[in-house]
Amino acid sequence: MSAPLILISNDDGITAEGLRALCEAMLPLGEVVVMAPEIERSAMGHAITLSDPLRVSPTDMGMDGVTAYACSGTPADCVKLAIRAILPRRPDLVVSGINHGSNTGVNVIYSGTVSAATEGTIMGVPSVAFSLACRDCDDFSPAQTIARHIAGRVLTNGLPPGTLLNVNIPDQPAGSFPEGNLDGSGYELTVHGKADWEDDYDKRVDPHNRVYYWLSGRRRDVEEQSHTDEQTLKAGKVSITPLHYDLTAHHFSEELSRWSLFQRP
Amino acid sequence: MSAPLILISNDDGITAEGLRALCEAMLPLGEVVVMAPEIERSAMGHAITLSDPLRVSPTDMGMDGVTAYACSGTPADCVKLAIRAILPRRPDLVVSGINHGSNTGVNVIYSGTVSAATEGTIMGVPSVAFSLACRDCDDFSPAQTIARHIAGRVLTNGLPPGTLLNVNIPDQPAGSFPEGNLDGSGYELTVHGKADWEDDYDKRVDPHNRVYYWLSGRRRDVEEQSHTDEQTLKAGKVSITPLHYDLTAHHFSEELSRWSLFQRP
Repeated sequence: MSAPLILISNDDGITAEGLRALCEAMLPLGEVVVMAPEIERSAMGHAITLSDPLRVSPTDMGMDGVTAYACSGTPADCVKLAIRAILPRRPDLVVSGINHGSNTGVNVIYSGTVSAATEGTIMGVPSVAFSLACRDCDDFSPAQTIARHIAGRVLTNGLPPGTLLNVNIPDQPAGSFPEGNLDGSGYELTVHGKADWEDDYDKRVDPHNRVYYWLSGRRRDVEEQSHTDEQTLKAGKVSITPLHYDLTAHHFSEELSRWSLFQRP
Repeated sequence: MSAPLILISNDDGITAEGLRALCEAMLPLGEVVVMAPEIERSAMGHAITLSDPLRVSPTDMGMDGVTAYACSGTPADCVKLAIRAILPRRPDLVVSGINHGSNTGVNVIYSGTVSAATEGTIMGVPSVAFSLACRDCDDFSPAQTIARHIAGRVLTNGLPPGTLLNVNIPDQPAGSFPEGNLDGSGYELTVHGKADWEDDYDKRVDPHNRVYYWLSGRRRDVEEQSHTDEQTLKAGKVSITPLHYDLTAHHFSEELSRWSLFQRP
């Protein structure tokens, strides 16, 4: 039996330290191929490129055992293109990250990191997104241990069709994640929360006297149901949220069915 | 009481015929302001622009009573920026479209049209995405009647927090949508289906001998649960799907909770 084939992507781009960290973490588990955006592609949502050609450049990441490509497209493009046109066979796992910064609450909707894992799931491959809640992101080693641990479980257990995992890791020194906690109380099974942004636009004037707007804002704390991704992360635990992309709002269907639109005259 | 304020956006861009059609359809219902991408922004998913400034240009659409702006950003940018920085007050309704082409099944994930309505919902405004299943899109008038009908209901009834409507309209001559059918059997309350694409990449060589890839593909018919968006559209009825953006895959949580990750040693 050949080693599992693991496809790695991200949205911080091919040069991001978190990508290298994820490669190192995955190498003991199988054969690693990277297809990542050639430039940063954060907050891309689930964008794919239809109207432009995509370019792929073989890239030397200077890591033994890692085959890497930079792609001109979005994170979702990277995963789709790798699976359909580049990889020698169907991968056994798609992992995305390690993102520099968390992806919880409403951010999940905008996240390119999650989008890469969603695309893997759409293509039928078990997929996991990893994000580290860091500002300066100087130590990925605890996150690497956690990512390897979870990826190993996914390779063993698989995931149901249409379901991915969104993993958020608190930025804490390795010492605060003792092995014991990581096989037990260090992980929390969470739900996708509603934490969002108090966002605003700075209105400015450029050197040529033209107006422009720049998105600014800060995270807003909203009162939430328990066991959300953001709450768990703040409590210093690893948040694991199972996500799907069936967007039907079933809770509203019954009320909506009583609208006059649907009443036979 | 002042007339309702209706914000209109799309992903086909400020010059799209479907956008003009939606403006005409909404004018009898209230005051109309357009903020749409200055260029086509299809398949953008829920992308927002963080790393670049946004530009806004007042635009004359040549339509009485319509105030319009073209924006350098994505559909989600258009809606967020209009609400936060441009509109004189909070809108009562956000509508997006009328998209040239349907947005059903997996396409909903990639859709800029749906993304504009999702952003309206995130901002707390009742929001509806309209798409016409057309190839050449030469007659928007039946779709206009339907859009006005549904938007009127949403203005009257509201929508629950976090819930939007995704409306797909079959491309049929006006005669096949008699008034009777439109207040009764012409609409179908649906679920977000799983119809996806058999996608592929054309590998080509450019005039400078560099390889590029272009996404191609055709819709794949998958066996589906009943009452999906795509099935309903094919049956010649208007599909109305309530969507939300809580992505938690609750159906998998119980099984996942039994993974050894979550077992206290």
